[in-house]
Amino acid sequence: MHPQDEIAAAIEAVRAPDEDARDAARQRQVHLTKPAGSLGRLEEIAVWCAGVRRDPVPNLLRPIMIVAAGDHGVALAGVSAYPRAVTAQMVHNFLNGGAAINVLAAQAGADVRVVDAGVCVDISDPRLHIAKVRAGTDDISEAPAMSREDAETLIARGVAFVHGECAEGADAIALGDMGIGNTTAAAAITSACTGLRPEVTVGRGTGVDDERFALKLDAVGHALARNDADPTDGVGLVASLGGSEIAFLAGVALGAASSGVPVVLDGYPTTAAALVAAALCPQSVEYMLAAHVSAEPGHRLALDHLGLSPLLDLGLRLGEGTGAALALMLLAAALRSHREMATFEQAGVSTSAIETAPEA
Amino acid sequence: MHPQDEIAAAIEAVRAPDEDARDAARQRQVHLTKPAGSLGRLEEIAVWCAGVRRDPVPNLLRPIMIVAAGDHGVALAGVSAYPRAVTAQMVHNFLNGGAAINVLAAQAGADVRVVDAGVCVDISDPRLHIAKVRAGTDDISEAPAMSREDAETLIARGVAFVHGECAEGADAIALGDMGIGNTTAAAAITSACTGLRPEVTVGRGTGVDDERFALKLDAVGHALARNDADPTDGVGLVASLGGSEIAFLAGVALGAASSGVPVVLDGYPTTAAALVAAALCPQSVEYMLAAHVSAEPGHRLALDHLGLSPLLDLGLRLGEGTGAALALMLLAAALRSHREMATFEQAGVSTSAIETAPEA
Repeated sequence: MHPQDEIAAAIEAVRAPDEDARDAARQRQVHLTKPAGSLGRLEEIAVWCAGVRRDPVPNLLRPIMIVAAGDHGVALAGVSAYPRAVTAQMVHNFLNGGAAINVLAAQAGADVRVVDAGVCVDISDPRLHIAKVRAGTDDISEAPAMSREDAETLIARGVAFVHGECAEGADAIALGDMGIGNTTAAAAITSACTGLRPEVTVGRGTGVDDERFALKLDAVGHALARNDADPTDGVGLVASLGGSEIAFLAGVALGAASSGVPVVLDGYPTTAAALVAAALCPQSVEYMLAAHVSAEPGHRLALDHLGLSPLLDLGLRLGEGTGAALALMLLAAALRSHREMATFEQAGVSTSAIETAPEA
Repeated sequence: MHPQDEIAAAIEAVRAPDEDARDAARQRQVHLTKPAGSLGRLEEIAVWCAGVRRDPVPNLLRPIMIVAAGDHGVALAGVSAYPRAVTAQMVHNFLNGGAAINVLAAQAGADVRVVDAGVCVDISDPRLHIAKVRAGTDDISEAPAMSREDAETLIARGVAFVHGECAEGADAIALGDMGIGNTTAAAAITSACTGLRPEVTVGRGTGVDDERFALKLDAVGHALARNDADPTDGVGLVASLGGSEIAFLAGVALGAASSGVPVVLDGYPTTAAALVAAALCPQSVEYMLAAHVSAEPGHRLALDHLGLSPLLDLGLRLGEGTGAALALMLLAAALRSHREMATFEQAGVSTSAIETAPEA
């Protein structure tokens, strides 16, 4: 299939979550042995997941963490505290199981898929999925990150990849990213989508000093001045402002939504991918869970724009999917309590003072 | 041993956490393949736990959830949406594995211990630990909850119980509570310790209406007017303002600290127990982790008074240890990343632009 047609088919396949399943889940919550609403957001995400999965009592047996990596031309402008070579080095680390995401995904019971969406170095490893159309992006402060065709190909490859995972039984998809310079791209996409100035969307990423921060602000300013993509044109946005891993992950988010599988976002770059997916298909947002709000100030603004409220606020600023892995633990806890708790009837517990013999 | 002597011995045994282990853990974090500090509070709690456990790379193999239940005389004044009989009904539910805490503790890999610290009904079950000195407390709006001697016995039993668990290898202790009316006692203890008015420490508990809320506010006002305990007298505080489960859990917190084992707090009643433990032994607070801030407005004030910052804010207001169980998952994730992640040297990843060949 042509990439454009594959994307169009995925958009077409995204349905509204199932209200009946959601209502049945909400009803079930009322009967569990606890005051209604007392499990707060755990109840909320269980009910949300029921709608997404079209199942009043969904299970979580096969969460998959998809970590996509790509290099950024803008990294050469000095916007990061790390050299661009770290992207490929970290891909090796992911493959060898030594990174934070390997440990946290294992703790959450999720398998990790590592994807080369555009790393400069070619890494030959049978465990690495190659989605790359080009090695690195162009410097977005000077030119579009990539062509429209390349962006479409990357998005379509994300859709196809996640369709494969969903066909094999994935019941939650978590997004992870790696790319030195990618919070610069995330800030540019967030500004383009929200209309907010770079001064509020640009942060310090993995920890840049004042000098690099000024360069980063400058790079985003130039990228936005150059960019002429319509904020409702997802392909144009990501082609212009980049991130090959962001394009691929936008396809993953869209593809998961079209398969009726929940999408767990991580930090700023994966949320930029969600903005691109939302531009392609607004309804895909109903399939998204905001795992956490990162230390990057722009991340909260991007989540606000999507109407998503983060579960966690732990000062994370690593990416890789680390916050998403923690949220998978909460999702598993929410679904398991939804599934396994006794009802008032089963446990012989009084539902309220009103319905029982007066004691007070 | 006399209860008073047992408490004094536990207080005497609480040492400052080990600074060397904490420093070694902090050093280790710097070498792991991520920007320093980028795992936010996960790093912070791994370093904290290293100090508490006197081990630079602590493990979490045997977390124990201790759920103590007790009845409250003040419940008869109509301060709760539920009848007092629910306390005993929920103890049965805990023993049968149907409550939220059973599911969430299982998900966190923690065994649950259920303790009768003062339930009105006598429950005969070999799985139930009996620490009860009396059935229920007196109504704190009219009289002290219990005698000083009873409070001392309950605290000492908490100490002895947790010492037994620690001797069998418990490496984290999570606190859970059950007691219809116990957020009223928690508010009274919080007001007595902080000097804050009931108007800010009293909340809606599991969900009371305006009429019951007014009764609750009134009950706490009367309890405080009657109370003459010195806020630094832990025994006097809990004897006067009660909660037999709060007294027992204060002993558990103190005993865990004296065994060098971290204590994970849950919601308002367990944090009231922490206030009592802190009054007995201020240094015990260094062993405490605030799992979450509940929907009860006074809970945050109690945590602030202890100088503890909650990990989670999920709108929970159930108690039972449910928030503590979720925090155990985060603690396990923090310790596992601390233990298992590769170092920059092991993974061959550049530590920063400064230390590598210039690319930018």
